[in-house]
Parts: sequence; structure tokens; C-alpha cells
Amino acid sequence: MKAIEVGLLGIGTVGGGTFRVLQRNEEEIRRRAGRAIRISMVADLDTARAEQVVGGAAKVVGDARAVIANPDIDVVVELIGGTGLAKALVLEAIAAGKHVVTANKALLAIHGTEIFAAARAKGVVVAFEAAVAGGIPIIKALREGLSANRLEWVAGIVNGTTNYILSEMRSKGVDFAAALKDAQALGYAEADPTFDVEGVDAAHKATLVGAIAFGIPVQFASAYVEGIGALQAADIAYAEQLGYRLKLLAITKRRDDLQQQGGATGIELRVHPTLVPAKRLIANVEGAMNAVLVHGDAVGTTMYYGKGAGAEPTASAVIADLVDIARLITADPDHHVPHLAFQPAEMHDTPVLPIEAVITSFYLRLQVEDRTGVLARITRILADNDISIDALLQRPAESDAPGASRTDVIILTHDTVEGRMTRAIAEMQALPTVLAPIVRIRKEELG
Amino acid sequence: MKAIEVGLLGIGTVGGGTFRVLQRNEEEIRRRAGRAIRISMVADLDTARAEQVVGGAAKVVGDARAVIANPDIDVVVELIGGTGLAKALVLEAIAAGKHVVTANKALLAIHGTEIFAAARAKGVVVAFEAAVAGGIPIIKALREGLSANRLEWVAGIVNGTTNYILSEMRSKGVDFAAALKDAQALGYAEADPTFDVEGVDAAHKATLVGAIAFGIPVQFASAYVEGIGALQAADIAYAEQLGYRLKLLAITKRRDDLQQQGGATGIELRVHPTLVPAKRLIANVEGAMNAVLVHGDAVGTTMYYGKGAGAEPTASAVIADLVDIARLITADPDHHVPHLAFQPAEMHDTPVLPIEAVITSFYLRLQVEDRTGVLARITRILADNDISIDALLQRPAESDAPGASRTDVIILTHDTVEGRMTRAIAEMQALPTVLAPIVRIRKEELG
Repeated sequence: MKAIEVGLLGIGTVGGGTFRVLQRNEEEIRRRAGRAIRISMVADLDTARAEQVVGGAAKVVGDARAVIANPDIDVVVELIGGTGLAKALVLEAIAAGKHVVTANKALLAIHGTEIFAAARAKGVVVAFEAAVAGGIPIIKALREGLSANRLEWVAGIVNGTTNYILSEMRSKGVDFAAALKDAQALGYAEADPTFDVEGVDAAHKATLVGAIAFGIPVQFASAYVEGIGALQAADIAYAEQLGYRLKLLAITKRRDDLQQQGGATGIELRVHPTLVPAKRLIANVEGAMNAVLVHGDAVGTTMYYGKGAGAEPTASAVIADLVDIARLITADPDHHVPHLAFQPAEMHDTPVLPIEAVITSFYLRLQVEDRTGVLARITRILADNDISIDALLQRPAESDAPGASRTDVIILTHDTVEGRMTRAIAEMQALPTVLAPIVRIRKEELG
Repeated sequence: MKAIEVGLLGIGTVGGGTFRVLQRNEEEIRRRAGRAIRISMVADLDTARAEQVVGGAAKVVGDARAVIANPDIDVVVELIGGTGLAKALVLEAIAAGKHVVTANKALLAIHGTEIFAAARAKGVVVAFEAAVAGGIPIIKALREGLSANRLEWVAGIVNGTTNYILSEMRSKGVDFAAALKDAQALGYAEADPTFDVEGVDAAHKATLVGAIAFGIPVQFASAYVEGIGALQAADIAYAEQLGYRLKLLAITKRRDDLQQQGGATGIELRVHPTLVPAKRLIANVEGAMNAVLVHGDAVGTTMYYGKGAGAEPTASAVIADLVDIARLITADPDHHVPHLAFQPAEMHDTPVLPIEAVITSFYLRLQVEDRTGVLARITRILADNDISIDALLQRPAESDAPGASRTDVIILTHDTVEGRMTRAIAEMQALPTVLAPIVRIRKEELG
């Protein structure tokens, strides 16, 4: 089947990531989407840089309108940003009958009503998974995965820059200015960090999330926005003492019950520094990571966690939208979402490995006689089986049995093939100084 | 537009939840799906109980085949469980041209290949979001949200019973038998807990996840399965000392690089007790909650967290599948997934509340003169504004200024309307004993 032809407007960080991931995972993506998805045309003012990125694999032009005018292009990906030129180009692409994928939260939070109406009138899709929380498929979760629920509230860490700064302020006890400088040096904050630090970026995302959660039009102008610039290290420390962490949360909440204390009916839509109980998972989301809590009446509270920015995490969301569109516009009903993600004809018969071939690290507990040379024999057996030790803990001896004292030896190993460990355990178990069945538990760092 | 007519096979816990949520959120779901979704027929051997649940709102029959034979039924929801009768009924429903929604992981992990092939041949969908991790939309995330990625591994806590038992063993230091008894008394474990405790339930789910992640056929027989019955409290305590937590993880992993130590090419598919670094978010998932980590080459590590079982969380997934089917089979292209989740004509104009009407609790820091009566005046102002105090922390006085000593007073309040707090702060700020601008930070319990 003919490939989906994609035109890319802007090939900076995210555009470059999108190009790279589509190329690298071309085969995997084709197996899922049912047809290839190819960026065949790229528009960027910096055509030299664009040429360098695409390396001849796509036509490069300086004028975005040349992409929109190309009748072979099925989908236009807008990664220019801002609400000026980007708005004009998105509307022109829609008018030309192209589907649009964008990561532009500002554009949709401010002009979404107009843009979505235009898309509906032309029967095209404007997809924007990448606009909120980067690679985390939160738009899909809200729009589809939780569609059974009356959603009550959504609260998220949706700006990595500010979460990084707040994490630094807490862990190092420094004030805002010092943490910001650090974040800028490490590339977690822009030279002009205003949009992030003042909460505007988070509020764009909250606006989209609120509209999707509650079925109201996007209305960024109604959002309450307060940034982190005025926060002091002292308050982070006091909050800690009281069992709280400080996070910049984007919150949107339904308020339609009669509140005790003079509350009104409506939707809360707000971004501000917020104390959160330290025991909540979201309070422990550190650095530039994002996480979104969603509370629905049936499902209760669910959480979605991952990288909220960066070239490839954002590309992951852009390309997921492209796959959705490919599945949608392919007339063959078998090319909608396949039962097992991959098209039936594209399943592989890669074998499932037997447990002996699995690679993990291990925790071992050996109850041994407490005498000279026992540990040497155990570590020798591990070494002979090419298993290396990560940590070793020997408990003080207990002399609970008359005439002999016994002790627990705990060993953490590095990764090894299970078969080797099974052999090593059999050899250790055969030692007369090993007094009880050896406990073996697998370990995963999940790093 | 005509409602989607659903036939329910089995109205036990999950079936009852599905019926209840569909009824309660009928309007919300119709606004999203573009048409009503209605359970119009229910089959259950216990017709009396079924009648009680549906209260006349659906036709109740004792014979599941009467539902399948009904030409008005668009979708059959199978909630009988097991791999015997359930298999026959699902295949008959498919043969009759019905779409099928099921929560039956055992059925699909064992007979999925046959069932999905039959569904494709008849052009119907077999949807199974509820089969893995209850209300968490993890199937959708893997199949659609992360479709750009070459997935590397998935590791999840997908069985609430065993996670509850392990949480109890750790927090109370009790052994497996005692924790199991506790779990049974509280309804977190079945009278016969074998499938949960031995890891079989988790392995069914891992089998489905592995197939979706890597594009291989379901093959439960190849999974390695080890339960938690042999775990000892001592090892949980040692693991804790070494910085690890013990979890029953369902893991599936791609292994296609040449490993240093004799590794093979293939897919790892395994369920076993696993040590996980205590600092990872997933290590802190306690009680009956579920969480799934997914690692993709572009997105990095993402996590999905929520309730993995229970009537309404599972119903949330069943109904999400029904909404997907409703959107899919509705010919009007406008009735596919709407841009903002709700159908364009179904948006509401619920107002966004001004910040003065928002309800939150607050953290306040006041720098005050350290003299008698200061605190009384502050608490009086809060009381007069109908704001109640949750916690109060007064720091020891510092006498940094000559002639006057000052101290920090930290106050945590209960929920209040923001406007009241703004008034109270203005009044407190006007006190001559309040020496610096009052710090006000909002607080959310996110409970």
C-alpha cells in the first residue's frame, strides 16, 4: 500500500527527532500502521541545516506554503511554534484538505475553537498528543481510555523546566535564582525562561486538558496563572517538615456540587505552586519528568508519568498521531487498530526464551556456618561461573544451635544468564557449610 | 442516532459495575461517543440477581445464546470468565457478526490467536482493555499511544492481590501466610487465591502485553511463572536494608542485541518476585494498586498507575472499549474521536471560575513579632473569615533585630474559598505585629 506522505514544517529539535525516529523505526511503524509513513518534504527557513538533517531523504524547501500546496502530501506536521505564522499555516493546510499534527499548545489553547471548527468543516483531523506532557499519551488516555468516566479533576506536573528548578531548590536548599541558573546551564531552561517559569506553558496545557476532560471550549484567557519566581527556599523547607512537597501543578476541576462554603458551579482552571503530600507518587516526580493525575468517578485516580519534553519523547507523540491518522484514513477495516498492535500479516515468530536464557541480576541469601573460608568458597564458585558480585552483606553470627554458630550471607550480583546462576547455586548448595536451602530472588534495576 | 445495543454475558461484580456506570454516566458517555450506549439484554444463570441489578432496564435471560442470537445486539460483553464456555460464546458471538468486549485475560492469553483470527475474518473487533491492569488504559497506550517506538521492555505490577500481600509483609513484618489471611478477610484475595498467588493471573496479562509490545503471537505456555508463596519476611527486610523493595513483576523484554555473556535472541516473558530499587516510583506502589512501566527507544520510560481490579475500575475499561466501538462503527466521520473528546454539538459552556471562587487549602507563613497575643489575633481573623486551621507551626524566636524578636508562624488551613483567604490575609497583613509580606501557597491533598 502507498506510503503516507508527510510534510514537516520546521525541523528544529522536535522536527529533527521526528525525522530521526520515523527513519530509525520505519519498519516497526509500518508493521503497526499497515503502511509506511514517510516525511517526503521539509520546510525550514534554514534550508542548509534542514538538508543536513534529512541527508537527501526528503525534499527541502524554504517556503512552508510549498509543502501545503503539494498534492502528494497527506499530513502536515506543524513544529514552528507560536501563534502567528503557525496559525496561518495550520488553517491553510486544513483548507487544502490536509490532516494536521502539531505540538503547538499555545496555538490550540488560544485558537483551538477556530482551528477545530475549520478541521471539522473540511473533514480532516488536527492531532496534538505532543502538545501536552511530551511522550506521555495523556490526550489519548483522557479522550479515549477514560471515556466511561465522569472526570472530576486532573492535576499534573506538565512543565519540566519548573519541576527541575523546584527539585533543585529542595534537594540543594538553594533559592530560585540559583536553581534557574543551574537549569539554564544544563539546558533544562531556555535563555528566556519566562513562559515556563511564569506558568504560561503549563496553563496552555491545562487549558487543553480542561476542555477535553469537561467538554468545554478552550479558553486560555480564563485560566489563572501563577509561576514559581517568587518562591523561597524557606517555604520549601517548612513544607518538607510538615510532610509536603512543592510542585507547580496544572489543575482543572469540576465544581458542580453544592459546596458547604459558598462555592460556585463551574470549572476550575489554574496553574500555581502547590503543596502536595510527600507520600503521593506525584510528589516524588523529580527533575524534568512530567506526571499527570486523572480522577474519574469509575476508575478512581490514575497516573501517567514520563518525559514531558525533548526531541525524541515529543517525536514519539507526533508519530503516534501520524500512525492514528494512517490507521484512520486507510479504507481497509483491517487497517484500523489491530488486535495485537501489529498488522496480522506482520507478526513475527521471535521465540520466547526459556528461563535459563533470561538475563537478570540476583539477590541470594545463604545460611552458612560461621567459620573461616566459607565466604571464600562461595565467592570462588560465583567467580568460576562468571557471575560478578555487586554487594555482599554478612550478618553477625547467631549461636542459636549448640556447638555451631550460623550466619546469613546476602549477595547481590550483577546481570547474569539464569542458567549460570542455577549451576552456581547447585554447587554452593552442595557445600557442607551451607546449612539451608539458598534463597534466590531476581532483581531488576528498571533504570 | 440509534443507540448501540449491548448484550451482557454475566452480571457479577464487573458486570454489575458496567451496568451501573453506563447508567450513571449515560449522558456523559453519549456526549463523547456520539450516540447512546445501552445494555439492553443481560444473560446470567442467576436471573433473580440479574433482575435485581438491572431493575427492569434490560431484558434478563438465563441463556447466553439468546443474547448472541438477538439481531438487535451490536456488541456482546463477555464477563463470564474461564476458558471453557466463555471461549465457545465469544466464538459464537463473532460468528454472529457481533463485536466483542471482554475482560478475560486467561481466554485471550491461551486462545487469542484463534479468537483474533476469527474476528478478523468476520470484520469485527474483540476489545480487551479490561483484561490488563483494570481501569488503567495500558492496552491503548501500548497499541496506539506509543506506536512510534521500538519497545524495549514492559514491567508491571498487574496483580493487586499479590501486591497487597507483599505490602503487608513489608509494612507489618509478617510472613506470607498471615498476610494472605489478612488479604482474604479484607476481600483483596479470593477464598482460593491460587491463580493470583502463583503468578498465573499476572502471566496471562504479561502474555497479552508481550504480544502487543513485540508483535509476536500470544503464547501463555511459554511464559515463566513463579509466585510469591515461598517468600519469607527475612528477605523483604534484608532487601529493604540494601535499598530494594520486593514486588511481583510481570516482565517482557526484547533481547536482540548480542549480549556479552552468552545471551540469546528472543523475547523474555516472565512473572516472578523481583527486587526493585526503593527509589523507583513503581517500588512505592502499595496495596492493591497496579502500575506498568513501559520503555520505548524514543519515549524513554513511561509509567501508568491506577486501580487494577474492582467493579467500577474494570467497568471503566469495558466501557472505554464500547465507546471505541461506537466511534468506529458510526459511519459519520465526525463521530470518530472528536478533537476535544466530546462531540462538537455536545460541548457545554460551563464557566471557568475566577480564582476568588476556587476552593483549596492553604499554607501561610507570617513573620511576626514574638509577643503575647499575636497568635490570638491571627487565629481570630481566620475564624472570623470562616477559615479553619489544620496545623500550626511556630518557630523558636530569633532576636536578630535589636529590641524586638521575630518568629515565623506557619499555618496549614482546611479547604476554603480563595476570596475569603484573600480578605483574611489583607486583615492579617494590616496588623502592626506582622512584619513582612505574608507568604501564601495553595495546597492540594490529591486524595
